Amino acid sequence: MAELQIRTLDTRDNDFDIQLTKLLAWESVSDQAVAQSVSEIIAAVRSRGDAALVEYSRQFDGLDIDSAAALEIPFQRLQEALQRIPTDQRQALEAAAKRVRQYHEHQNQQSWSYTEADGTVLGQQITAMERVGLYVPGGKATYPSSVLMNAVPAKVAGVDELIMVSPTPGGFVNDMVLAAAAIAGVDRVFTIGGAQAVAALAFGTESVPKVDKIVGPGNIYVATAKRQVFGSVGLDMIAGPSEILVVCDGQTNPDWIAMDLFSQAEHDEDAQSILLSPDAAFLDAVKTSMARLLPGLSRADIVRQSLAERGALVLVKDMEEVVALINRIAPEHLELSVEEPEALLPNIRHAGAIFMGRHTPEALGDYCAGPNHVLPTSGTARFSSPLGVYDFQKRSSLIQCSVSGASELAKTASVLARGESLTAHAISAEYRIQEEGNE
Amino acid sequence: MAELQIRTLDTRDNDFDIQLTKLLAWESVSDQAVAQSVSEIIAAVRSRGDAALVEYSRQFDGLDIDSAAALEIPFQRLQEALQRIPTDQRQALEAAAKRVRQYHEHQNQQSWSYTEADGTVLGQQITAMERVGLYVPGGKATYPSSVLMNAVPAKVAGVDELIMVSPTPGGFVNDMVLAAAAIAGVDRVFTIGGAQAVAALAFGTESVPKVDKIVGPGNIYVATAKRQVFGSVGLDMIAGPSEILVVCDGQTNPDWIAMDLFSQAEHDEDAQSILLSPDAAFLDAVKTSMARLLPGLSRADIVRQSLAERGALVLVKDMEEVVALINRIAPEHLELSVEEPEALLPNIRHAGAIFMGRHTPEALGDYCAGPNHVLPTSGTARFSSPLGVYDFQKRSSLIQCSVSGASELAKTASVLARGESLTAHAISAEYRIQEEGNE
Repeated sequence: MAELQIRTLDTRDNDFDIQLTKLLAWESVSDQAVAQSVSEIIAAVRSRGDAALVEYSRQFDGLDIDSAAALEIPFQRLQEALQRIPTDQRQALEAAAKRVRQYHEHQNQQSWSYTEADGTVLGQQITAMERVGLYVPGGKATYPSSVLMNAVPAKVAGVDELIMVSPTPGGFVNDMVLAAAAIAGVDRVFTIGGAQAVAALAFGTESVPKVDKIVGPGNIYVATAKRQVFGSVGLDMIAGPSEILVVCDGQTNPDWIAMDLFSQAEHDEDAQSILLSPDAAFLDAVKTSMARLLPGLSRADIVRQSLAERGALVLVKDMEEVVALINRIAPEHLELSVEEPEALLPNIRHAGAIFMGRHTPEALGDYCAGPNHVLPTSGTARFSSPLGVYDFQKRSSLIQCSVSGASELAKTASVLARGESLTAHAISAEYRIQEEGNE
Repeated sequence: MAELQIRTLDTRDNDFDIQLTKLLAWESVSDQAVAQSVSEIIAAVRSRGDAALVEYSRQFDGLDIDSAAALEIPFQRLQEALQRIPTDQRQALEAAAKRVRQYHEHQNQQSWSYTEADGTVLGQQITAMERVGLYVPGGKATYPSSVLMNAVPAKVAGVDELIMVSPTPGGFVNDMVLAAAAIAGVDRVFTIGGAQAVAALAFGTESVPKVDKIVGPGNIYVATAKRQVFGSVGLDMIAGPSEILVVCDGQTNPDWIAMDLFSQAEHDEDAQSILLSPDAAFLDAVKTSMARLLPGLSRADIVRQSLAERGALVLVKDMEEVVALINRIAPEHLELSVEEPEALLPNIRHAGAIFMGRHTPEALGDYCAGPNHVLPTSGTARFSSPLGVYDFQKRSSLIQCSVSGASELAKTASVLARGESLTAHAISAEYRIQEEGNE
């Protein structure tokens, strides 16, 4: 068996900054052939609807079907899956859904308004989207936890109808995924995937209803299709490989830290696990733990490759340097395995989710702590947020001017409109000025 | 002079639904040549930085410069512009900025957390983005009000540094735009535009700092460049043509309604103005007003073309039908020129901004009422919101498990992780289970 390989860096090295930049570099491959193929699939679904979906499902997923009706999983089938899975799995899914729901209920926004002295009312009204599409990958990376994390916030937000799509290559349907859909309140499920599923949700077909927003992860075809329908339909972010930055003061059991790093690395070969510590002996201890624990993993090969290519154990000068590195990296997952994590918090500007203390491994957040596991990757925490209720609601601005309020505002608007040479704007405002004896 | 042309529709017509669909249809032209050219410009700016910016500014904007230093407007120049513009314009800009700031301060989000019975803490921390880029179109469509509407919310959100870019074809600089930038708190201004400006902001050059998010409207090159850098940097929406839906019970002065419709139509030829009323005589009166008032507008030709191509006067059965049409259209601007606009509000699901009552024309909201004038267009109010403080802040999830809390959560996580065949996740969680005597 191949040995464990993981690079060790030291912030005191002259070329540390260059090495870190190389380590963090990630750019998704933009393939012209994929873009062309996706563009053709989208055009076909837009023009031929269900007929195109049936053809692609026969071609790509090997489904032996001849009508679009066969592409919908009857609602009853979800309940059956819930009955069929082992009791401990059902209970775990229900417990996780309950905690995710509780956390996200704290995100529900309220409409508000305020009245000014002259009677003018300003505010904003919060409403939910009507219909949302949830893409769930098929095959090897089918995660029931992702169904919960995407569907529960949508339902908490008040979305009327949640349409799930998931390819079923060879007709294989994952019962735990269907059970999670039942628990999360998914309304309809179609066994379609790839760019054709994105197109069907974005534009609608005879069978698949058009949605307002599409969420959920997918492969390069799905990501490319999302990019191409951008603007016609709402989208969540396009996720890169998953990553974790663990910070440890050297006082946590090194086996724990090793396994926390593994739990990220096992996602896929491109995943990234980085450990920062001011304690060189501790970094050695973690490396020793890793070498010992690696063979016990079911996905040891993926972990080995991920750590060799994108992992790092980094010796830092002190905990102050740590904060600067955190903000530079803007990690998707940040684990603060230190004595007083709350002391670091006020200085942390960029991170998707922050796991605080020795007893808060990322794995708890991935499944059931409550916050969402759909998080900004590849440094995009600088400008993006975890998926949440906010992503399924929207705001409408409210403006109701009193007669005197309008009159005052109109004077300002008139000057600015004329400064922009927009005469109709100016006159429309001026009609509401009172002193001239209007109405 | 050409006569006023505007289509009249009646919801009772058999083909009304088809006519409405045609009227609302809008798809931005996706031009392969533009995409190719933008892609080359972005690659050049990424690889050659300032040198490429200087070349493009010479080529596209006719600037006689030979170094990138000449592309930055000294900060002092903004203050000079503020002194130089007419006093009434300065006062109007300051009054508008003050009201926009006051409204947006209501949007500031607070971090929160809650502690569960076992001591586990869950929450979310709100932080501002560090650096934001603001694109301001040059030439004919240079709007100081847009500078305020984009810059003020960013500053209210707590953004550290606001970088404005705006092309200055032939070296022409609009003093009112610079004055608005000074009032709004813009930190640096570069005279660059087009795809090269978007690339510079997204990736940084020697002179132009890389930003976390780019906001602000632009032409097809700017929109295409934004689409191409999607993922590397945060973006606001890509706006379509502006539109208004006016609802009137027939009791507002028809001149007012005519001018409110004009104020939208004068933006550009693709802008859309639609009036709904249950009163056929009132629709006629508005049309008469329009014909009389049109010649007095400075942009009469644009208004005439916009109304002929995309405008409509629609006779509806009753006010109940109106609500269904509003939600179907999901207008950017909705003006409820009726006696009791608040009665309609609870049933309005999709609209960017709602202008309530006869004394609240859109023009007041465009400049100075307080809410943002950057709004979702072309029906995207189904899934998007007005620009706001939210667009310049982000959330980090907080999870701090107590020892006993972690132990309970770990049992659930373990079952789910093993159900997903993610062993490292499972073991990482199981290490935190107490009953086995771990630490």
